[in-house]
Amino acid sequence: MGQFQVRTDLALEAREKFTEENREVKGVKLKEEYRRGTEIKVTTMVIETENGAKAMGKPKGTYITLEAADMDCQDEGYHREISLELARIVKKLLPKKKKALSVLVVGLGNRDVTPDALGPRVVDNLAITRHILKEFGKYAFGEEEVNAVSGIVPGVMAQTGMESQEIIRGVVGEAKPDVMVAIDALAARSTRRLGRTIQITDTGINPGSGVGNHRHGLSEETVGIPVIAIGVPTVVDAATIVNDTMHTLIQAMEQNSRLETLSTGLSALNDMEKYELIRELLSPQLNTMFVTPKDIDESVKRLSDTLSEGLNIAFA
Amino acid sequence: MGQFQVRTDLALEAREKFTEENREVKGVKLKEEYRRGTEIKVTTMVIETENGAKAMGKPKGTYITLEAADMDCQDEGYHREISLELARIVKKLLPKKKKALSVLVVGLGNRDVTPDALGPRVVDNLAITRHILKEFGKYAFGEEEVNAVSGIVPGVMAQTGMESQEIIRGVVGEAKPDVMVAIDALAARSTRRLGRTIQITDTGINPGSGVGNHRHGLSEETVGIPVIAIGVPTVVDAATIVNDTMHTLIQAMEQNSRLETLSTGLSALNDMEKYELIRELLSPQLNTMFVTPKDIDESVKRLSDTLSEGLNIAFA
Amino acid sequence: MGQFQVRTDLALEAREKFTEENREVKGVKLKEEYRRGTEIKVTTMVIETENGAKAMGKPKGTYITLEAADMDCQDEGYHREISLELARIVKKLLPKKKKALSVLVVGLGNRDVTPDALGPRVVDNLAITRHILKEFGKYAFGEEEVNAVSGIVPGVMAQTGMESQEIIRGVVGEAKPDVMVAIDALAARSTRRLGRTIQITDTGINPGSGVGNHRHGLSEETVGIPVIAIGVPTVVDAATIVNDTMHTLIQAMEQNSRLETLSTGLSALNDMEKYELIRELLSPQLNTMFVTPKDIDESVKRLSDTLSEGLNIAFA
Amino acid sequence: MGQFQVRTDLALEAREKFTEENREVKGVKLKEEYRRGTEIKVTTMVIETENGAKAMGKPKGTYITLEAADMDCQDEGYHREISLELARIVKKLLPKKKKALSVLVVGLGNRDVTPDALGPRVVDNLAITRHILKEFGKYAFGEEEVNAVSGIVPGVMAQTGMESQEIIRGVVGEAKPDVMVAIDALAARSTRRLGRTIQITDTGINPGSGVGNHRHGLSEETVGIPVIAIGVPTVVDAATIVNDTMHTLIQAMEQNSRLETLSTGLSALNDMEKYELIRELLSPQLNTMFVTPKDIDESVKRLSDTLSEGLNIAFA
Repeated sequence: MGQFQVRTDLALEAREKFTEENREVKGVKLKEEYRRGTEIKVTTMVIETENGAKAMGKPKGTYITLEAADMDCQDEGYHREISLELARIVKKLLPKKKKALSVLVVGLGNRDVTPDALGPRVVDNLAITRHILKEFGKYAFGEEEVNAVSGIVPGVMAQTGMESQEIIRGVVGEAKPDVMVAIDALAARSTRRLGRTIQITDTGINPGSGVGNHRHGLSEETVGIPVIAIGVPTVVDAATIVNDTMHTLIQAMEQNSRLETLSTGLSALNDMEKYELIRELLSPQLNTMFVTPKDIDESVKRLSDTLSEGLNIAFA
Repeated sequence: MGQFQVRTDLALEAREKFTEENREVKGVKLKEEYRRGTEIKVTTMVIETENGAKAMGKPKGTYITLEAADMDCQDEGYHREISLELARIVKKLLPKKKKALSVLVVGLGNRDVTPDALGPRVVDNLAITRHILKEFGKYAFGEEEVNAVSGIVPGVMAQTGMESQEIIRGVVGEAKPDVMVAIDALAARSTRRLGRTIQITDTGINPGSGVGNHRHGLSEETVGIPVIAIGVPTVVDAATIVNDTMHTLIQAMEQNSRLETLSTGLSALNDMEKYELIRELLSPQLNTMFVTPKDIDESVKRLSDTLSEGLNIAFA
Repeated sequence: MGQFQVRTDLALEAREKFTEENREVKGVKLKEEYRRGTEIKVTTMVIETENGAKAMGKPKGTYITLEAADMDCQDEGYHREISLELARIVKKLLPKKKKALSVLVVGLGNRDVTPDALGPRVVDNLAITRHILKEFGKYAFGEEEVNAVSGIVPGVMAQTGMESQEIIRGVVGEAKPDVMVAIDALAARSTRRLGRTIQITDTGINPGSGVGNHRHGLSEETVGIPVIAIGVPTVVDAATIVNDTMHTLIQAMEQNSRLETLSTGLSALNDMEKYELIRELLSPQLNTMFVTPKDIDESVKRLSDTLSEGLNIAFA
Repeated sequence: MGQFQVRTDLALEAREKFTEENREVKGVKLKEEYRRGTEIKVTTMVIETENGAKAMGKPKGTYITLEAADMDCQDEGYHREISLELARIVKKLLPKKKKALSVLVVGLGNRDVTPDALGPRVVDNLAITRHILKEFGKYAFGEEEVNAVSGIVPGVMAQTGMESQEIIRGVVGEAKPDVMVAIDALAARSTRRLGRTIQITDTGINPGSGVGNHRHGLSEETVGIPVIAIGVPTVVDAATIVNDTMHTLIQAMEQNSRLETLSTGLSALNDMEKYELIRELLSPQLNTMFVTPKDIDESVKRLSDTLSEGLNIAFA
């Protein structure tokens, strides 16, 4: 896409531009698996080098993507399969040092804006145990080693006047969990991905990602403990959607026999000139807008159930 | 815009295409007023003839638009002014036959999708009086004639399995109000109008309007009592926003000296051909998507407060 | 309990006073079953005669009570068992005349008062199908006969200005379902029952029952179609709780050796005089108050999930 | 009331027992004022000595109580008066050291339990400014000195697994406000006070107070900055209400001519024996229950509007 960066929070989509251009990316490993008997596809991408990180525009680390065409359908059995797969992935990413961990789950985003409510709603449905363990000890659960699960919904800056990072650093400093799991609604590049992909990564949340654009990132570096981030795309930036369709328009013009003379004219422009042209035309107002499906309420309800069930299994 | 109809629920925007083309519309009267000492502009459009209705794509009747640049700001005094103006307009549209009316306020839309929650939230904040009058009589309020206000939030089809129209016809048949006031979130053509315009009309709700696309309309014809509709645009259809930017792109190409040959080619196409071209390129998925501002939660909160205050004043 | 009627919406509790007094109630049949391998107890009470109805203070019909000590615990498997049992009972009560029914589920109560939000929350989680069947026919679900499920949350009088009965009669008249299932939060006599009992009856909702005191009942007589009512006790009337403890106090006094002279005095009063005494002392304000557990939010969340799952199974 | 401590979070009610017994409390000063032209009564109680604190069961400090009979009515003008009075009181309690303060408002309690949702809802309606000041500086508001307002809703232990105190200490440590204002729903002793009293104190939140029983307190000692606490009673403990009515019953027995012999018997018991008797009879389950009005949703809605308006005025 030349100089013009279209925003995506999905590592998988960031890699697609190279696939389209049939290019290898050095320092980035990719493995695709299909879960037998299900329609779930799991892609593991490891960004191993700084060069790979630069090319991808994402920090070094592991990005696991769980794709399923009907992730937002009503079938409960199907959601159970996704929850189990998610639990398996999260368990693998959890630190190994201890038998029982103290896990802080952070529900990022704005509870009052439907496509951004995913994180808060996942925390609403978690099995919270830390306070019970603190009061009654691990025997409260009749088992030998039980993870202590705590959760927080920090809200967004317009609600709190504070960066999520400030709130989370403070809470981590007091409650001292071993690991943090951050849940967030993401922006995808393509509307086809909305509600159908779960991204799990051990790199945390990057600055500027998420539906509401967290300005400061959340990672081991900034928070002091490992951060596993789980995200599902629920919006596309309005600017992205317009950009994409205009890109298609220009391509169509170049190929369309009805528009021969056009094709000559456009061919005279190089890629960068084309995108400069688009950029100029994009209304700056679009940057404060997002695109989301009309049935986003049902989608977020189901996805948050699936995610919280997956986490409950992973931590049980 | 030729054959290709871009959707807008605002009569004002429907008329703009004629203004752009500097054309009079027969059978449509227009009056603009500025409220002294405020920044409120009130436009009254009366569609008087069937021809006017056809040209505008809206039924005959009165469409009053209240515009204010900072309608979604925090200033309470300012909102009070808008509420007072709204109350004045609604009072004028209410039936005159009786001293005290029974008014049913209907909050259309989906409470769980932020930009579509306007109607439900207005009803949440109404001063409901019908049950008190029924139980204690008008002297409960120590006044001679008091309007009986009732309210209902019918929900959307995915939640109820029923058309709003079915529910409302049933409730109207039992509760027998004199007039219905329907509140709805609207789709505008331009992002600039979002949250800054209130449309009040005595024609009810047209089929296919609103954020969630009511299939059946709500009007005196279908419900049996006069229907005043009050709407505020909170979304733009995703297809509209893409269409508009592409329109701008083509215009730019025609005018841009860098793109001389293009202009020749495009000029060869007539308007209809251009929009056919755009239509082909528009992803059908976009029809199930909307565009809305990231801070839509705050906007809907303030607007619903302003609207319910206006109605409370109008009915008091 | 003499003349003084303590309120309970549970037929089982209404019968207990006779059990305490070791009395048979003519015209009332009782059967108790324990579901093997579970901790669920199912009691079926049939009020067969008008005399029985009079003695019980409940209309003729079948009252099935499902009791489980840990109904509000977190164990998902356990909730599944209760949902399955509930589905079995509801299916038995549904009209038999047709292969596929049109069912209207009504979520009574006030969404904004936690213990009264049970009904609305059950409807939130229902699989609504009527609109899909209407649009695409039964083959949309790839099965021969599918029930058409619709749902409505009518709200309470303070929110709508209308009786639930008015709204429901209207909706039933338009949407013409074959049967109605009403979900409601109930008042129990004993705090021990809160969140641990589900009552299913084919007699509908009686006037004056429910947390918020519906003034008008909902039954085949008033609505025109059979009404199955499903309720879970979530509150105890404040007056009941005080009355009960005072009753215990008086009993203790009569038995307590420390209080010999008291016992003489109290024994001189008959039951009715005792309760008149209590009645005089009860603050009239208590009638507008209810008693509910501090963790009612978790209890209502789990119960509404269990109930909606049970209904989804019953109607699938 | 002898040894038996009935719980109240209101200093005013704690003092009433002394008033009833016509006793002075050393080290406690009391001043009552009526605001001219309004029905607002303001009582200022200063606990000056450790002995006073001991007698009252509350820490040393200033307790200001704002009482108004119709605090939960719908009249907007009336609420404005209360907001203005509240703002005046809060301003007086704010630290004086700086021209512009950084204020953290903490909404304690459980958003999902209606009578406990007061704190969270006040924060929802606050004018949050800290992030704007941080980004654009004080000139963003066109004034010389502007207070930086931030807000947080920490949730309750069952939701987060953490003590509110842990979360708040963490956030205070990171965001470093000058002063904290904690909003909380309180337990009163008398149902008559519910929704009609606002208590403002500079002593913070005591351990064990609030509807949900915060185990750890919030005060300058534990949080490190001055803590102003604002509370409104929305519940009465179920045990309290029963205790009170039984107390009345015993008093009635002692005075009632119908019950002469009783009075002899009861007079033989001293106060402590009487309350021991009551205590034995109180169901331990009652400790996990509260009593609240049926229209608590409307009451909390209005009160939270009044409180947030008062704070917005105080900090503007």
